[in-house]
Amino acid sequence: MAKIGYLTISLLIASEEEEKELLKKTSNLGYKVCMGKAGTMESSELIAAIETAAKREEILRAGYYKEEHALYHASLNALRGFCRGEIGIGNFLRTIGVKFVVLRGPMDTTHSNLGEWVSVGIYGMVGAPIKGFEHEAIGLEINNI
Amino acid sequence: MAKIGYLTISLLIASEEEEKELLKKTSNLGYKVCMGKAGTMESSELIAAIETAAKREEILRAGYYKEEHALYHASLNALRGFCRGEIGIGNFLRTIGVKFVVLRGPMDTTHSNLGEWVSVGIYGMVGAPIKGFEHEAIGLEINNI
Amino acid sequence: MAKIGYLTISLLIASEEEEKELLKKTSNLGYKVCMGKAGTMESSELIAAIETAAKREEILRAGYYKEEHALYHASLNALRGFCRGEIGIGNFLRTIGVKFVVLRGPMDTTHSNLGEWVSVGIYGMVGAPIKGFEHEAIGLEINNI
Amino acid sequence: MAKIGYLTISLLIASEEEEKELLKKTSNLGYKVCMGKAGTMESSELIAAIETAAKREEILRAGYYKEEHALYHASLNALRGFCRGEIGIGNFLRTIGVKFVVLRGPMDTTHSNLGEWVSVGIYGMVGAPIKGFEHEAIGLEINNI
Amino acid sequence: MAKIGYLTISLLIASEEEEKELLKKTSNLGYKVCMGKAGTMESSELIAAIETAAKREEILRAGYYKEEHALYHASLNALRGFCRGEIGIGNFLRTIGVKFVVLRGPMDTTHSNLGEWVSVGIYGMVGAPIKGFEHEAIGLEINNI
Amino acid sequence: MAKIGYLTISLLIASEEEEKELLKKTSNLGYKVCMGKAGTMESSELIAAIETAAKREEILRAGYYKEEHALYHASLNALRGFCRGEIGIGNFLRTIGVKFVVLRGPMDTTHSNLGEWVSVGIYGMVGAPIKGFEHEAIGLEINNI
Repeated sequence: MAKIGYLTISLLIASEEEEKELLKKTSNLGYKVCMGKAGTMESSELIAAIETAAKREEILRAGYYKEEHALYHASLNALRGFCRGEIGIGNFLRTIGVKFVVLRGPMDTTHSNLGEWVSVGIYGMVGAPIKGFEHEAIGLEINNI
Repeated sequence: MAKIGYLTISLLIASEEEEKELLKKTSNLGYKVCMGKAGTMESSELIAAIETAAKREEILRAGYYKEEHALYHASLNALRGFCRGEIGIGNFLRTIGVKFVVLRGPMDTTHSNLGEWVSVGIYGMVGAPIKGFEHEAIGLEINNI
Repeated sequence: MAKIGYLTISLLIASEEEEKELLKKTSNLGYKVCMGKAGTMESSELIAAIETAAKREEILRAGYYKEEHALYHASLNALRGFCRGEIGIGNFLRTIGVKFVVLRGPMDTTHSNLGEWVSVGIYGMVGAPIKGFEHEAIGLEINNI
Repeated sequence: MAKIGYLTISLLIASEEEEKELLKKTSNLGYKVCMGKAGTMESSELIAAIETAAKREEILRAGYYKEEHALYHASLNALRGFCRGEIGIGNFLRTIGVKFVVLRGPMDTTHSNLGEWVSVGIYGMVGAPIKGFEHEAIGLEINNI
Repeated sequence: MAKIGYLTISLLIASEEEEKELLKKTSNLGYKVCMGKAGTMESSELIAAIETAAKREEILRAGYYKEEHALYHASLNALRGFCRGEIGIGNFLRTIGVKFVVLRGPMDTTHSNLGEWVSVGIYGMVGAPIKGFEHEAIGLEINNI
Repeated sequence: MAKIGYLTISLLIASEEEEKELLKKTSNLGYKVCMGKAGTMESSELIAAIETAAKREEILRAGYYKEEHALYHASLNALRGFCRGEIGIGNFLRTIGVKFVVLRGPMDTTHSNLGEWVSVGIYGMVGAPIKGFEHEAIGLEINNI
């Protein structure tokens, strides 16, 4: 049994080697998955990077507002969790360097009757724009799609 | 090399078997660590459970307000990340069942000169008080101590 | 042409007479609709009232977590809009007396290909627990379902 | 009997034809009223548009900070309700196209002894900068002036 | 020249001796003033204490909703500043022991033509319910009345 | 006996003459102290001004991330208190002109065993970019360092 959030988090913190294995496993469990990286001081750029990757990798069906809406709010809330409160990066004088993961599929692999869900995870460093003056943060949101 | 947030997240999502191995590894890397579980509709109860566990396992030195202050704000912000915005559980008609992890030690094991930090992670289920009507969430905060 | 939000708001502010006409029109346009009233100092009670009404009137299919999840977040955000910021009623020493409306159907009646959406609207009085020491507020959220 | 919020909302969702009738009725009930439209990704631009319209239409007396202060906070909170939480438009990668209405007058027309109030309403579309990938939202705040 | 916020803050941090002198000075400058203390874990109790004191000392005219509304929002925002973000006391497992001050009068004593304003200040200790495990906080809001 | 928050607030509202006396007293009590002024519409500029001043005056030890982290969160929360809710200046169409004070030393001078703390205070004017259309605000945060 595997849950959508567990798989998202596992991919977020995986090393490059573990990633390959995990991506295969995740696909075999019936999930569509995409990943990417972003370094930015603008929250809109991170949201755009997630949306672009999800469309390119066909996690979303082109032209379906419902699906984009579900992904958008999952991304916004994952970023809110990452920021631990109000969303703010450059306007709070900090920068982020993150990996993001998007999964689409069942809530958990033993309950496929619960329909499709989307999970967005963000993990990486947040801090001052000085090497080493930063620490880790994580954000995750799961939404009906 | 291992980072304090990575280790916290790894422990949060570990199976019982993986946990034992990870706890040993984390201790060997120089971290104090404690864990616990909480099921509640009151945010104050989760914060209390984290504080109590951290004191009992001597993550904090008894009677040091500075250290309790650092842990308190890490816990509050980890919960904020878990809630993806405003803190609210029962007052938002939802319940949580979570595992929490507290680590104290270096920011990352290759930079011991960065002093001591505390990391609080919360992972588990949030949702309606109906079996299966819930999904995963995660929150993490790292603070200077 | 009619939009889901426009119809929700129209029902919220309708007089009893206008309501009958509007309910008929809204149903004819292909929407499932339910309404109710709540007077409370607890935000969880309002959310519960909305959920209960939506289930009783079969806006949601029984046992579908995905649909309850969509409604829950629409309700929470409609309440956030009503509160104009943080959610708080009794804990902010105020009370509310509101009408709520839930619609399920197309985003707008000329774009049925956009799939099904749920709209939650809350309208009424908020203020001190003294007759006349209160003013109107409104909240609306539209979510994919 | 008519309430300031009800009239504001009615004007917000009125068709062009209904608007004329409603504006006349609202004026006859003793309200000063102004309206406008704004399409923007910057929250400051919407607030500026509301202030400018209110001054031009003499809803506010020129040079009275107290009145501008009351309008400013009503606008900010109406926008907060529209955004359903934190204020954010372009920084959250979304755009808005809205109509706004400002009323000044009695809380309700049967209680003129309650003094003057200002009501700000915002209604329109919010969403991705793609035609059709957007949905309705509404915000309202009523303040003493 | 003296400003309403400066006088409020000065009274908040005054010793008992300084207080007498300051109260006299503040009254002579044309301000109505009241003060009080509150120790609580419920935000509603603090708001109630401020309202009650302001009515008893006739800072507000009895039965004027407009004036109560202005005071209410000043109190809520002063508490928000005191809490440095979301309002939360006992639900965040903390307790407060504070002094509060309410002033009504000119924005500053050299600009009496700016009309009447109300200022609410809150100052004191916030922290764990353990003696010494707490630190100072302050909140201030100024509103048109 | 003197507390770190009391001293910070006293310095914030001191006249130029009082300031000299207070600075001497504060230093003699064992605090490192720095002050500055900032007029801006960007929250990041105020945070930067506080950090720069604190480094230049050696409130922080150069290259210590732990100490910069403690100051950063104190500054961010002081600004949150100043803004009475969400952080926003220019994006909310307002401007600020403030004085800030940073203190480092004991929580209070009779409890030196409580270790070192940092206090950040912000006081000044916030409002429309029109002379006189602004009022006072204050923000304070105390953090373990």
